[in-house]
Amino acid sequence: MEKKILVREIGESALIERLAEILGPVGQGAGQGVIRGIGDDAAVLQPTPGKRLLAASDMLVEGIHFDLSSISPRQLGWKSLAVNMSDIAAMGGNPRWALIALGLRPDLEINFVENIYAGIADLAKKYGVVVVGGDICSSPKCLTLDICLLGEANRAEVVYRSGAREGDLILVTGNLGAAAAGLAYLRNKPENIDPGIKDSLLKAHLTPSPRVKEASILIKSGAVGAVNDLSDGLATELHEMALASGCGAQIWAERLPIDKPTAFMARQLGVDPLHFVLYGGEDYELVLTIPGGKGSPLKARRLARSLMKATATPLHFIGRILPASEGLKIVYPGDRTEPLFPRGYDHFRS
Amino acid sequence: MEKKILVREIGESALIERLAEILGPVGQGAGQGVIRGIGDDAAVLQPTPGKRLLAASDMLVEGIHFDLSSISPRQLGWKSLAVNMSDIAAMGGNPRWALIALGLRPDLEINFVENIYAGIADLAKKYGVVVVGGDICSSPKCLTLDICLLGEANRAEVVYRSGAREGDLILVTGNLGAAAAGLAYLRNKPENIDPGIKDSLLKAHLTPSPRVKEASILIKSGAVGAVNDLSDGLATELHEMALASGCGAQIWAERLPIDKPTAFMARQLGVDPLHFVLYGGEDYELVLTIPGGKGSPLKARRLARSLMKATATPLHFIGRILPASEGLKIVYPGDRTEPLFPRGYDHFRS
Repeated sequence: MEKKILVREIGESALIERLAEILGPVGQGAGQGVIRGIGDDAAVLQPTPGKRLLAASDMLVEGIHFDLSSISPRQLGWKSLAVNMSDIAAMGGNPRWALIALGLRPDLEINFVENIYAGIADLAKKYGVVVVGGDICSSPKCLTLDICLLGEANRAEVVYRSGAREGDLILVTGNLGAAAAGLAYLRNKPENIDPGIKDSLLKAHLTPSPRVKEASILIKSGAVGAVNDLSDGLATELHEMALASGCGAQIWAERLPIDKPTAFMARQLGVDPLHFVLYGGEDYELVLTIPGGKGSPLKARRLARSLMKATATPLHFIGRILPASEGLKIVYPGDRTEPLFPRGYDHFRS
Repeated sequence: MEKKILVREIGESALIERLAEILGPVGQGAGQGVIRGIGDDAAVLQPTPGKRLLAASDMLVEGIHFDLSSISPRQLGWKSLAVNMSDIAAMGGNPRWALIALGLRPDLEINFVENIYAGIADLAKKYGVVVVGGDICSSPKCLTLDICLLGEANRAEVVYRSGAREGDLILVTGNLGAAAAGLAYLRNKPENIDPGIKDSLLKAHLTPSPRVKEASILIKSGAVGAVNDLSDGLATELHEMALASGCGAQIWAERLPIDKPTAFMARQLGVDPLHFVLYGGEDYELVLTIPGGKGSPLKARRLARSLMKATATPLHFIGRILPASEGLKIVYPGDRTEPLFPRGYDHFRS
């Protein structure tokens, strides 16, 4: 059995060396615009001529964003990069270079930290992202990860949340509420749950798949007006899109895509699955708009077919952009309409 | 008197709005390559054609890098950006765009957080850096800041720590050990200290000036082989440079520039001021090399004169690059020579 080594027992440079090894030659940048990666005061990169540069940063804090009793270090590494990739994808970008800042508790095992990096490397290699630098320091009270991710996009393919227009169709990728249902599973651990359902819920919560290819295909179709990723739940993200675009919106409750594991979990807990969908957050699916008008639902179906063919990810038509005066609302079966409030996760409200 | 508002009493988006206001129109990017700054999933930037992109990240954790009883929020904001600017400067870059990730204790006052941003804005405006995004989240146990700073450099002007060659002269900007002496002042608070000395020590420790202009002038002279900033102390940084360059080095103790406040503080504590210089860290001065050979000390003096004229920052010739077999050493008056160990601050060793 290998001796357990703690973070406080190894030197900073020895730790950085071990982590750089995990990233491997790809991680250290064989080409891919990386002139110098890990190992100097700053990374040196070669942007692609003519492209826009995209930059996003997401911080994950122990006890707030994750609980080490329910996520493995490898899953944590994956997820911390995934949430940033989702932000770059939602702007129309191709994620390229990552800087990883780790605040480590000194009592963590080196092996634990290496597994965080292995999880980052798993996802980075899948999408050709290179880890080019970052920082490692001591954070005695809580493990903290902050990733800054840089991406590139063709000028004409950068899409903002402000691009929605009255009459547009509102679409979402994948199924909604699954990440929140996964969190609910971890908190409640119902007995005798079907292993397939459990796996599906945990995957949605712990190792989400950022919709990089999906965003690229949708945006390259030329039809997309606005995009947001669903990190904070559909209600909040739709509010942000409507606010930025100077519009209102309505969605139809019965059109919101909910998979069987999410519905199962909601039933187990006696809650409305729409609660997961609207306010749960962390789905990392995309909400987007395409122009409305004659033939637009047909166009949406065609777009959905080609997305399904290329990525096996479904695309659902869930609502319409309205004039700002209409506000945001959700229409239930029987045309019962209620206002939709932005009640997603807020870090500073309890 | 204005009512005190706590972080946990304000919504996330209201807080972001208040912070964006502090940055002002410059902070939000009037031109300066910023297509879209704060307010979408990612920032959208326009890199300058033909330039290299530089990227650095530095995380600061309460209780490790700073103690709120001795640094004001405004100083903390300044310092957290300054340490990143120092990294970009040491690579030959012009700092341009910053992403700020803040992990906030919910019991902090909003005014405190606004002051962190005011400090960031003070330094950012001084150098034309634009804050283009980041993240704000809850970190219940310790305030954490991570800044990712992007810069640009002409291809031919990127300088690595690996560029030192046998025979090169080793130079440093400014005075050394002052930041460590400032920390020692804060820890010991000697009575009846001269206010001028106190201010000088505190400024060095709390609001260091990144050597952006100095690095640019030195590198554009075409003479510079290698550069490191002195974040971890001269001994460690020289080791990194020697290791990366495959060289050894020697420095002369009597040539190491120590200002009066630093010398005073060392006397007060009965320690050798060289301890501050070699192992103290956080000076954010530059250590660099220029080619040796005939006339090189004269060349160093000329370079020092032109740097002094342009920036009022001194440049000192402190040592020479040696063959790797000679290792690293420090020569004391009377030619007593001792090996120089990389004993700067290490996050994971006590």
